[in-house]
Amino acid sequence: MGNHAITSNDGWSVIDELEITREGKAYILAPRKELFMRPDGIFEPAWAPIFYNPTMMDNRSLTVLSSLAHSYFGNKVKSFAEPLAGSCVRSLRMILEANTQEAYANDIDPYSIYVCRANARLNNIADKVIVFNTDANLFTLQLDNLGIPIDFVDIDPYGTPIYYLQSSIKLIAKNGLLSVTATDVGTLEGKYPYKAFSRYGVLVTKNSFSKEVAARVLLYTLFRFSAFQDRVIEPILTFYDKHYVKIVVKVEKASSTKIRELERNVGYIVVDSNGLPIHTISVDELIGTHEDNKVIGPLWLGPICNQSYLEKIIELSLNKHVDLSKEALSKLRTVLEECRINTPYYLNLPLIAKILKANIPKINYVLETLRNKGFLASRTHFDLLSIKTNAPLEEVSSLFSFRS
Amino acid sequence: MGNHAITSNDGWSVIDELEITREGKAYILAPRKELFMRPDGIFEPAWAPIFYNPTMMDNRSLTVLSSLAHSYFGNKVKSFAEPLAGSCVRSLRMILEANTQEAYANDIDPYSIYVCRANARLNNIADKVIVFNTDANLFTLQLDNLGIPIDFVDIDPYGTPIYYLQSSIKLIAKNGLLSVTATDVGTLEGKYPYKAFSRYGVLVTKNSFSKEVAARVLLYTLFRFSAFQDRVIEPILTFYDKHYVKIVVKVEKASSTKIRELERNVGYIVVDSNGLPIHTISVDELIGTHEDNKVIGPLWLGPICNQSYLEKIIELSLNKHVDLSKEALSKLRTVLEECRINTPYYLNLPLIAKILKANIPKINYVLETLRNKGFLASRTHFDLLSIKTNAPLEEVSSLFSFRS
Repeated sequence: MGNHAITSNDGWSVIDELEITREGKAYILAPRKELFMRPDGIFEPAWAPIFYNPTMMDNRSLTVLSSLAHSYFGNKVKSFAEPLAGSCVRSLRMILEANTQEAYANDIDPYSIYVCRANARLNNIADKVIVFNTDANLFTLQLDNLGIPIDFVDIDPYGTPIYYLQSSIKLIAKNGLLSVTATDVGTLEGKYPYKAFSRYGVLVTKNSFSKEVAARVLLYTLFRFSAFQDRVIEPILTFYDKHYVKIVVKVEKASSTKIRELERNVGYIVVDSNGLPIHTISVDELIGTHEDNKVIGPLWLGPICNQSYLEKIIELSLNKHVDLSKEALSKLRTVLEECRINTPYYLNLPLIAKILKANIPKINYVLETLRNKGFLASRTHFDLLSIKTNAPLEEVSSLFSFRS
Repeated sequence: MGNHAITSNDGWSVIDELEITREGKAYILAPRKELFMRPDGIFEPAWAPIFYNPTMMDNRSLTVLSSLAHSYFGNKVKSFAEPLAGSCVRSLRMILEANTQEAYANDIDPYSIYVCRANARLNNIADKVIVFNTDANLFTLQLDNLGIPIDFVDIDPYGTPIYYLQSSIKLIAKNGLLSVTATDVGTLEGKYPYKAFSRYGVLVTKNSFSKEVAARVLLYTLFRFSAFQDRVIEPILTFYDKHYVKIVVKVEKASSTKIRELERNVGYIVVDSNGLPIHTISVDELIGTHEDNKVIGPLWLGPICNQSYLEKIIELSLNKHVDLSKEALSKLRTVLEECRINTPYYLNLPLIAKILKANIPKINYVLETLRNKGFLASRTHFDLLSIKTNAPLEEVSSLFSFRS
């Protein structure tokens, strides 16, 4: 990378906009604050050619401190990775203050990486800082595929960290640490319930302890991205400060027994109309017993198929354009038939007969009778002995005759 | 790649174990079935040097048919990608039968990729099949970073497809298609409720329509991985056959309004003790009203911190090993204090006072009185005017004096 890489479009050298400053034990090239002042006289890190936010010093110190504590309790923290490094001050401090041997720092911005290299030389640790200049997830996946075990991964994005969780968790070595910072606290606290649901998959109604909810939504999200990769989290630190929440967790390989134990740690809080907490329900309680009416979900309740497409698919298959087995074609016809009925479940006739202690009626009789009564009714490709209908269960039950 | 790459350890050439067969309009090198027979006389594709399962022909035909229907309705399907290609018969058929211009086929197994190249030459379409030999997620992320728009992505793994969803959904071009096949139907149907929860984050209790539940859990999962990437799904085809469920969806860029609309399509089904469906509750209904007691979650309800680590972190910071602001240190002391109390929420004193129409008591008075009564009680770093305690709300309320 030549010098041109750090020259702005207007011909100024980016280096002219930087100065040497200090954070912790690290010297760094940071933006000259006076060049990037907002009208209210406050430094705006987003305007500078490389990203360095001095107000996040405590956040980075807590990364260093968590690592030191982790070492104290007998764990090695030899390697560190930050997929969104900016000036990579975090990597420098991990090496200078937490005895990390190797720091892998990535940023998609080539300016940042140029300055990161310069910073490493400035502190005489250029051999310990390995820099990458690519997409954050590509960086973590590439490290993972190289088989380099990373003892501590730190994600500190602008906004939500959700995009980086899967690959970061996968990258972490046995008993390693993950630090995650989220600045989308409005969403996490449930200020915009629809946004909380679409981003994090959680219901967050009005409540009087929303900052803790923010932390627990994020922890639940870490749990989810860990669990489907057969890993579990063990929280070390939860720290809500200013406009962010930072969470440090230990990540461990998990047996299904271990994940099962952790399900005591996931659940719901019931709140009253004032937003005060009433009681909690753990997933373990919800799954554990089968006595009463139970809830299944969350599920997709909307349409699961598209009639026009299905008709076209069947037509194309009949015209012999594409090979399809007779069985699959026949099944596809049923798929089309049931596609007209937007009921998110089917009714199993033998089960209803058993409960009613009645005979099982002929499926065609049931379908025709329901249709004659004005209901939609069809077979289902999911199960030969079941029907789909928009008729209520009682209506279907009334068609069963009792055993004589 | 030399010939040695397709020679087995025992010196046999892998080519000797293959023969030319046909599926749809494609000729392919496939394993010689008679060499890989199970004792019961059934061909076992997993034993062959490259993976080709003839019983999944219908699955692949439905990919071709969905693509043709998609074109018929005015959409271009110029490019196709399969991250887990095996012999890449799917890519060949998309080119030969669905007029796809370019197929990007990836497999981590070099034998598969060798045979895939040979298959492309055999059908005289070597210029249209671009092969990769890497990790499936690295493949999709690399394509995405190259800026190559992919109109149709097909994921057909052994087991759950969940690991591949985030990057595949991100890769799909505007109004493109995604086909996902899952063979972990036992888990999706709720045969192992804890596994369903840890892998998919859903509660699946005993029910009488489990095959549809399997499809809807998978669709919900596609919805989740789309929604946090600002995309929505529109189901085209749901097909449950033999030991798999295949789902084809259109993937669209989404405004938050559009995602919000879709929340009508996500929710819960209440079942009775027989596993029969009683009624459904959509997330839209759950979020939309605030009249009664409401549920927040799923949340992490377990510990959010580790006392030993916190004590060490504070000690290290005091010993001046690591810079930390006075404010952060003071906050950290509160974090340690509240860490002793495993209540997943805090109580806001001004809110309780307002509801009781009472005066707000001094926070230290409340804490001391609760402790004297044998409860745990502390301030919380989340909120200056709130407390954490294991005392019930009524106990705390009793400490408020009414306004005179």
